[in-house]
Amino acid sequence: MKIAVLRWGHRQRDYRVTTHVALTARAFGASQFLISDTEDKTIRETIENMNENWGGEFNFKMGISWRSAIEEWRNKGGIVVHLTIYGENIENSDVLDRIKSENKNIMILIGSKKVPPDFFSEKVSDYNVAIGNQPHSEVAALAVFLDRLLNGAQLGKSFDKARIQVIPSKYGKKVIENTSDLNDENF
Amino acid sequence: MKIAVLRWGHRQRDYRVTTHVALTARAFGASQFLISDTEDKTIRETIENMNENWGGEFNFKMGISWRSAIEEWRNKGGIVVHLTIYGENIENSDVLDRIKSENKNIMILIGSKKVPPDFFSEKVSDYNVAIGNQPHSEVAALAVFLDRLLNGAQLGKSFDKARIQVIPSKYGKKVIENTSDLNDENF
Repeated sequence: MKIAVLRWGHRQRDYRVTTHVALTARAFGASQFLISDTEDKTIRETIENMNENWGGEFNFKMGISWRSAIEEWRNKGGIVVHLTIYGENIENSDVLDRIKSENKNIMILIGSKKVPPDFFSEKVSDYNVAIGNQPHSEVAALAVFLDRLLNGAQLGKSFDKARIQVIPSKYGKKVIENTSDLNDENF
Repeated sequence: MKIAVLRWGHRQRDYRVTTHVALTARAFGASQFLISDTEDKTIRETIENMNENWGGEFNFKMGISWRSAIEEWRNKGGIVVHLTIYGENIENSDVLDRIKSENKNIMILIGSKKVPPDFFSEKVSDYNVAIGNQPHSEVAALAVFLDRLLNGAQLGKSFDKARIQVIPSKYGKKVIENTSDLNDENF
């Protein structure tokens, strides 16, 4: 199952929150991150640095049309899950089971304050999912949705070709930094 | 079990991310939110509006000393859980089971980029917990930690005395707005 995250409605001033969305997408199991309709060079650099230092093959695209991206995704047999507090409650309904049983590639659609009304309709979203129906945060919603979708497994995984690796510790900070000279020799 | 969230290192420019931390704390099951060492009126107003419109009794304090807040918490028998990518991995270790088995009030400590070294030591934190050891987001970490700590139950709950309530829907947006005139009559 391939998982992509599409961030709609990004503005320059959202830089930090959108960066959090991108990092969360990567760390919690998505393989692709899309920002629609606008380009943000700072976020591009952040993700490129992230991949270089922390490994993995997280892919990103910016400035694409959200309609085309969704149409293309669906034409290839994928489904679209819109995260919104107005959707079916992930805890009180069987929505997650229904999504899992489709066993298809998933595009997770993440808006900002005012999204186009079509996002709530079948024209765009196969599922509208609420990570609780209280106001919270698209970063929180994405994290919990991915954690539950993947049954938590992603959080224990390591990433290929990482220059920096954390050694989990009860106290203190332990980090291994691989340089190309050290690779495969010292560790 | 009472859960508080202490946000350390907030600066004015962090306004949106800290607001996301506050909303996530409330929606995902904490009863108190603390910002240490600084006051932010905009966030105060956001939380006050939130409580008024969406109900519940989410409590907040700002401008307190983090050392005093933690000392006081511990003196009353509570424990401190610092969320950090350097900590014990929540998926690959038994750290969450150990925390749950303590059955004590929990203060969740959420930093920003560079936290004081003491945060990683027993002087401050009883537990250092990593929601995965990859860079992500304090909002994501808080959301998943609370979701797992409370076994997801919080996301299905409603809040008392809410003026605005979402009716979860497969498609579209359904909201009930109670005004004092309408209360107990139309719904």
